[in-house]
Amino acid sequence: MSTNNTASNWKSKLHEIIYEADTPSGKLFDVVLFFFILASIVLVMLESVNTIDAKYHTILYYGEWIVTILFSLEYIARIITVRKPWKYIFSFYGIIDLLSTIPMYLSFVLAGSHALVALRALRLLRIFRILKLARYLGASNQLANAIKASRAKIAVFLFAVVIASVIFGTIMYLVEGEEHGFSNIPKSVYWCIVTLTTVGFGDIAPETPLGQLIATIIMILGYGIIAVPTGIVSAEYTKAADDDNKNKISDEERKHLENINLNTQSCENCLTETHQDGAEFCFKCGFELHHD
Amino acid sequence: MSTNNTASNWKSKLHEIIYEADTPSGKLFDVVLFFFILASIVLVMLESVNTIDAKYHTILYYGEWIVTILFSLEYIARIITVRKPWKYIFSFYGIIDLLSTIPMYLSFVLAGSHALVALRALRLLRIFRILKLARYLGASNQLANAIKASRAKIAVFLFAVVIASVIFGTIMYLVEGEEHGFSNIPKSVYWCIVTLTTVGFGDIAPETPLGQLIATIIMILGYGIIAVPTGIVSAEYTKAADDDNKNKISDEERKHLENINLNTQSCENCLTETHQDGAEFCFKCGFELHHD
Amino acid sequence: MSTNNTASNWKSKLHEIIYEADTPSGKLFDVVLFFFILASIVLVMLESVNTIDAKYHTILYYGEWIVTILFSLEYIARIITVRKPWKYIFSFYGIIDLLSTIPMYLSFVLAGSHALVALRALRLLRIFRILKLARYLGASNQLANAIKASRAKIAVFLFAVVIASVIFGTIMYLVEGEEHGFSNIPKSVYWCIVTLTTVGFGDIAPETPLGQLIATIIMILGYGIIAVPTGIVSAEYTKAADDDNKNKISDEERKHLENINLNTQSCENCLTETHQDGAEFCFKCGFELHHD
Amino acid sequence: MSTNNTASNWKSKLHEIIYEADTPSGKLFDVVLFFFILASIVLVMLESVNTIDAKYHTILYYGEWIVTILFSLEYIARIITVRKPWKYIFSFYGIIDLLSTIPMYLSFVLAGSHALVALRALRLLRIFRILKLARYLGASNQLANAIKASRAKIAVFLFAVVIASVIFGTIMYLVEGEEHGFSNIPKSVYWCIVTLTTVGFGDIAPETPLGQLIATIIMILGYGIIAVPTGIVSAEYTKAADDDNKNKISDEERKHLENINLNTQSCENCLTETHQDGAEFCFKCGFELHHD
Repeated sequence: MSTNNTASNWKSKLHEIIYEADTPSGKLFDVVLFFFILASIVLVMLESVNTIDAKYHTILYYGEWIVTILFSLEYIARIITVRKPWKYIFSFYGIIDLLSTIPMYLSFVLAGSHALVALRALRLLRIFRILKLARYLGASNQLANAIKASRAKIAVFLFAVVIASVIFGTIMYLVEGEEHGFSNIPKSVYWCIVTLTTVGFGDIAPETPLGQLIATIIMILGYGIIAVPTGIVSAEYTKAADDDNKNKISDEERKHLENINLNTQSCENCLTETHQDGAEFCFKCGFELHHD
Repeated sequence: MSTNNTASNWKSKLHEIIYEADTPSGKLFDVVLFFFILASIVLVMLESVNTIDAKYHTILYYGEWIVTILFSLEYIARIITVRKPWKYIFSFYGIIDLLSTIPMYLSFVLAGSHALVALRALRLLRIFRILKLARYLGASNQLANAIKASRAKIAVFLFAVVIASVIFGTIMYLVEGEEHGFSNIPKSVYWCIVTLTTVGFGDIAPETPLGQLIATIIMILGYGIIAVPTGIVSAEYTKAADDDNKNKISDEERKHLENINLNTQSCENCLTETHQDGAEFCFKCGFELHHD
Repeated sequence: MSTNNTASNWKSKLHEIIYEADTPSGKLFDVVLFFFILASIVLVMLESVNTIDAKYHTILYYGEWIVTILFSLEYIARIITVRKPWKYIFSFYGIIDLLSTIPMYLSFVLAGSHALVALRALRLLRIFRILKLARYLGASNQLANAIKASRAKIAVFLFAVVIASVIFGTIMYLVEGEEHGFSNIPKSVYWCIVTLTTVGFGDIAPETPLGQLIATIIMILGYGIIAVPTGIVSAEYTKAADDDNKNKISDEERKHLENINLNTQSCENCLTETHQDGAEFCFKCGFELHHD
Repeated sequence: MSTNNTASNWKSKLHEIIYEADTPSGKLFDVVLFFFILASIVLVMLESVNTIDAKYHTILYYGEWIVTILFSLEYIARIITVRKPWKYIFSFYGIIDLLSTIPMYLSFVLAGSHALVALRALRLLRIFRILKLARYLGASNQLANAIKASRAKIAVFLFAVVIASVIFGTIMYLVEGEEHGFSNIPKSVYWCIVTLTTVGFGDIAPETPLGQLIATIIMILGYGIIAVPTGIVSAEYTKAADDDNKNKISDEERKHLENINLNTQSCENCLTETHQDGAEFCFKCGFELHHD
């Protein structure tokens, strides 16, 4: 198991920079990456604006290539420094990292007159790189738990909303008819969800008195039932906080725990993060952790 | 009471398949039924889209007939296997099951040139079959209780919203008048509910400064009072969870209860569901339960 | 003080019918009144619809007169049977009761060619009669207390919303300008409130990229701060329920209290309601209560 | 340190009037200032309405000058009476106080034919004077704490909303395209936020069936996730109230504390407010407080 300990120094150094955020160089890498992700999103956005694209097409084009090459290099570096590359490649972030680079390269292979539009679409997939930002959220665990606890109930609730929309949508189709924009049931259901969720675009609006009466019922229903998911999350969150209170540790235990520090070092073998400061082996897979 | 025990075997077998969800065949039946309900809704929806109906009219027509016949067979099977057919026929689901089949048959009897449009409407009633989906929600009892507890208060709240809408609607009718779309009081009240519930279609919008000032008050009111039903449901839900906590059983009791299993077997006599696994008689009406 | 005890029997009988809801005749009176109020509102609404008014003008006109005369008789009866008429006349309901009858009479005195439109407006004031419905809400006290407790905080919150709207409204006026519908600051502020409260009519919408960016900020702000009043009411409501729990009386006390029955009898002198069943004198003013 | 004690009497008197709200004259100053701020905002608003400006231009112009001069005098008085003027000048309110006066003076210096429009914009900055109103809110501390406690979580939540908007906005751009108003990605993202926050202007609305389906998902998502910030604030608020309860002081302590009165006197040296009634020196910087 200690064979890897003799691995080339630059590899383990690079791994530290890319995968950890505790060392100064690792921190710098994350911040720089963060700004490159933001820049790549802004580039894609600006390119889609016709007036800007017409003016600065060359700059945007080269900017896109710089970002693509940098992301490619980062992708390769991630594969090299990780001990189980396939695990990374097929992980959620691995796939996103790949998808954020390939569209640009594909634009060469599939270069045709009409295919270019479709390629532009593929290129836009790079926007998914933004999901990388999720890594930097971190402290939102508490929030995530509250949502997870009430997920099932909110699903049932949203399902009820959809059923109500289908029923009311059908009724509105019969009442208003095609001449008032409710041209078919799917469109009526769409309108019903627009109304029930209190969005109210106004692209379609009931015009007959009966249609407006039913719309009134839908709106008051939508205004009233918004209380349900809110009440659920609120109650679950309060409950979670209470449980947290009950599970509070004694002062002595806290003192002991405060002496333990966790860092963001990640295992080269299984990618597990947050090891204790003095840890010699990964607590998940037992692989030996390297130190400087 | 045990006379029914000697009833034809296929009848009790069919009853088990249709009304219970514990046996493999019963489970399969429910899943198949669920997909047929979904398919029938999609059929009705597609039929209402002119471009799709023009292209695939024959397929949709036959699809509709297949669904109608299958639903009819299911309806007849339900009546035959239940001991008290009239109880089922006049139950909520019994009426919905019937309404989801008859429109298609009525289209023969009432076939006329102009009546067809109305018949199409009748056919659409089949959409109510979707309510059958409610059966599959099951676990939403906790949610239902929270809503039930705050029902009265939310009703009072919604009533206050309607009163406020009538008063503000009348004022807006006087202020804006017919030339700005507020052509009569019912329409003004309709607009007021659209605004108060924060839907805001924009089909009618105040144009005079005074009208816009009053609209501002209505919107802020609507934005503020949404807090009321939400607060109620949230508090009731928290309270229900607390009560749940207080009523928690001891570990010994729990152990005892864990040995009792409830199944979805439903009584042939009174349709009551969820009997204990070893139960010989219905706990509601005392009718002998059959076993395989 | 007991001189009134010898008052004409019909007067005290009438008082009982009008002001109390415990006796069968009193209950009947309230229900009949409730339906007449509803009918009067429907009449005013239908009259405002041109097509209906053109067809059924005479019926609506006579219906209006019947309601007006009945309301007038009720108003007179209320004054006669109360011991301190002026207190009733200048009470909230006294003024509303008067305002719901006079517009119809005024239409005679002020009959002119152009003044008629204004009179129609006065007539519409009768809609305020609807406020009488509030009397029948009754059991919403708990709700009212929760709102009362969080009133001050919600006021501060709504004030902050208005300030934010003024600032953002001014910025939007500068950014979008008159050519995009933001023709002056009050209108911009109106648009800002429409957006912040998530109503979104769409009669005015930002068209410049910068305007749309600021609109985005306003919308996310509005979407986020709706949480504040909701959180307040929810917390206050939970707290009120907890306090209620702590103040719960012992079983013995409850038994004692259960033997005391309150009725809706109202004092002829000070109009205070809900006296105990065996009460001889008003608990507020000491005035002797009459019994049948 | 006591040299300042011999400072000119009028200076310390003026300081008391401007910076404190306990003395009758100080209270009067604050109320008068409050109404002048309101008046200045109304003036700027009316001026932006073309029809009103055309009619009453001279009155509005002089009114503006009166307000500007009064605000300037107040600004100078604040600088003179404070011991560390630079600290005030670069404080939040110091900058706002300055910005609410300079635009009017700048309109002389930069008077040109085209620059006037821009100047008008500068003048409108005076609206920021409204922020002074925040001083009068005071008692909203409890609310502020609840918001502060859930600030981080709401920020994470709003960040997630923005990320979702960017992803869905890009998808909608690809699905709907330029011909349906989704002319570029930033505009699509804007539309997505309009929809997700349930505002729904309707200036842009999906027209393809697929676009409407995705819009449906966005709306239901927006309708469901509004529950998250609400639940957080609600839970934090409840928790804060509970903590408040636990930290309640004993009756003896309360008696002691009740004998201590805090006033709004503010230190001339460091501007700290709320000293105890008998205090001789500032509790923050030790500077001697003057008394009448």
